[in-house]
Amino acid sequence: MGEQLTVGEQSLLLHEKYRGKIEIKSRVQVKTKEDLSLAYTPGVAQPCLEIQKDVEKSYVYTNRWNTCLVVTDGTAVLGLGDIGPEAGMPVMEGKCVLFKEFGNVDAFPLCIKSKDVDEIVNTVYMISGSCGGVNLEDISAPRCFEIEKKLKEKCDIPIFHDDQHGTAVITLAGLTNALRLVGKKKEEVKVAVNGAGAAAISITKLLLTAGIKNVTLCDRTGAIYEGRTEHMNPIKEEMSKITNPDKIQGKLEDIVKGADVFIGVSAPGALTTEMVKTMAKDAIIFACANPTPEIFPDDAKAGGARVIATGRSDFPNQINNVLAFPGIFRGAFDVRARDINDEMKLAAAHALAHLISDDELSEDYIIPAAFDPRVGKAVAEAVAEAARKSGVARI
Amino acid sequence: MGEQLTVGEQSLLLHEKYRGKIEIKSRVQVKTKEDLSLAYTPGVAQPCLEIQKDVEKSYVYTNRWNTCLVVTDGTAVLGLGDIGPEAGMPVMEGKCVLFKEFGNVDAFPLCIKSKDVDEIVNTVYMISGSCGGVNLEDISAPRCFEIEKKLKEKCDIPIFHDDQHGTAVITLAGLTNALRLVGKKKEEVKVAVNGAGAAAISITKLLLTAGIKNVTLCDRTGAIYEGRTEHMNPIKEEMSKITNPDKIQGKLEDIVKGADVFIGVSAPGALTTEMVKTMAKDAIIFACANPTPEIFPDDAKAGGARVIATGRSDFPNQINNVLAFPGIFRGAFDVRARDINDEMKLAAAHALAHLISDDELSEDYIIPAAFDPRVGKAVAEAVAEAARKSGVARI
Repeated sequence: MGEQLTVGEQSLLLHEKYRGKIEIKSRVQVKTKEDLSLAYTPGVAQPCLEIQKDVEKSYVYTNRWNTCLVVTDGTAVLGLGDIGPEAGMPVMEGKCVLFKEFGNVDAFPLCIKSKDVDEIVNTVYMISGSCGGVNLEDISAPRCFEIEKKLKEKCDIPIFHDDQHGTAVITLAGLTNALRLVGKKKEEVKVAVNGAGAAAISITKLLLTAGIKNVTLCDRTGAIYEGRTEHMNPIKEEMSKITNPDKIQGKLEDIVKGADVFIGVSAPGALTTEMVKTMAKDAIIFACANPTPEIFPDDAKAGGARVIATGRSDFPNQINNVLAFPGIFRGAFDVRARDINDEMKLAAAHALAHLISDDELSEDYIIPAAFDPRVGKAVAEAVAEAARKSGVARI
Repeated sequence: MGEQLTVGEQSLLLHEKYRGKIEIKSRVQVKTKEDLSLAYTPGVAQPCLEIQKDVEKSYVYTNRWNTCLVVTDGTAVLGLGDIGPEAGMPVMEGKCVLFKEFGNVDAFPLCIKSKDVDEIVNTVYMISGSCGGVNLEDISAPRCFEIEKKLKEKCDIPIFHDDQHGTAVITLAGLTNALRLVGKKKEEVKVAVNGAGAAAISITKLLLTAGIKNVTLCDRTGAIYEGRTEHMNPIKEEMSKITNPDKIQGKLEDIVKGADVFIGVSAPGALTTEMVKTMAKDAIIFACANPTPEIFPDDAKAGGARVIATGRSDFPNQINNVLAFPGIFRGAFDVRARDINDEMKLAAAHALAHLISDDELSEDYIIPAAFDPRVGKAVAEAVAEAARKSGVARI
């Protein structure tokens, strides 16, 4: 019977069975009065007083050093849209499971009953003394940009919107390796990014930071260019000034013409075989719409593409955030970082890419596998080092 | 060497060793792509959609049914006063350990960076969809009353300030048994409560709810009576109308004269042997100031007291909140209660008291021991039943 169930139905049964994918576990034993007097009153007064004298000691005497709050407002959950705070929680709990499994980070899920930017910012700020960092999740654009920006200004702990930056890190890692494989230089390639949501913006920014010069964003209206007036918003305005150096105006088919790289974080079927045929030689396609990609790998190959990555685990080269966020937080926490900055993201992407040697590198292996046991440690070490070098490490 | 260390020093070493007394544990395994597709994307979309259709399903598909947030602002931590939010966290983590150990409740600690009533209320409300209940902790009076009241109005989950109600439940349980032992009726006894903080107010209210008629509160100024104008606040005003039926004006020594019961939640040494001598025959003394009680048991006995309880584990009859909150939340969670109301608190006190049979009852055994394995279950069952009878159970 199990054979006939869809993944969704099987997942529902799993969730009914476990009634919550995470729980709290005690590290200390309380079996006797003596145990109680050390873990709780009266002994516990002593660590309290030490923290009162020096708040940094909260990283020594409590689990703050290893605690990440996973926070959503439920407005952009998976591809389901605005389904409400409580309905986002199965994803948040899943994220916490992955944090523990792949980064040994103690992550705890919280949903916020508001869609107002300042209410969300204020709520997260208020509880930020409880944790070592905050992972924002499944918050709709463009609110997510403002929420993250304001929180980064207010808080002295890492604030990281994984839908943006996790995806960007993996994409950069994959693209680094794809370019290694086809022998093109990042300074010379032309990149078309389809989509103008949180992930698309963040990918574009990180590619530019990494030294790629020519990126053009495309939303439903077409190319984003400086001076465009229709369907713009503050973040698109900002992007229009730093992208599209050729001032292309037109639809996606115009933008991909001659492009070396297509990155889709958009909608199923957005890219056609015909469009791929117009791209440059050795075209690289990242078709990340999930579960149905912008173009299926066979169709992309039929158009002449050489390297194809998707968001799916049943094709080669999966863009899977689980490769990034656990190691990024592990590294940030290990040096008690104040922030997760661009240097740390670049380091994570570099570490991920270089887990694959020149010999191993192939069209079907530009990104390490989700369960590659080397990933978490490699990312964490690179991130911690970058935090130290960029001056945001506290220890 | 360990022998020479104080409890505080030993506790500090324990906290340094564990760096956090709780951690997150996964209930599900993620070792394969298939595991990942059920616990996370794409399968996890299914429970999300079910919760979107019916928010109550958040109690079925996530750990909400068993999750309690333990929230403080750090303003009244133990007897240490306002030591700041982060400094309160060792206590909050300890509380979470006890929740798990004694009630199998998954409790998670949060501290709030504000002392403003409305900011605290709003923060907790905003995240209340993440949990099954909230345990407020170590928040100073009189703010704690307003915070609890407002949260109870806004939220449809149990909000419970343990410093008030946990203490009140154990005190009522102990007093019930002390009166059984000395053969006095609750309707006829005269009770003096020394202190006018959160615990004192809450104890007094619960005693009145339980049917005790004559309670007089005493703060640093003396008896609280209707019409008193000095050192009053809204909660003392409210109490002045429902307590002190004899309109006593005077100091503690005037109030305890002829009293059957003294309950101290005040300061070390507040009650003297001489004062106990003026109390009624078979006087009952609850000297809960911690670690140094209002009067030591031997001194109370020297004054003629028959039953003495304290907050300490090294004397008989310890008033220890761990007897109440784990079972109260367990019971409330088991029936998905909307609230923890007076009926549930009375039921908890009754269940606790009646764990001790008439034969077992003695001057040195009016309250079950903290590690009595029957306690959690007995309290939980009584609380769940009371929730059902009083109409606040959802299932």
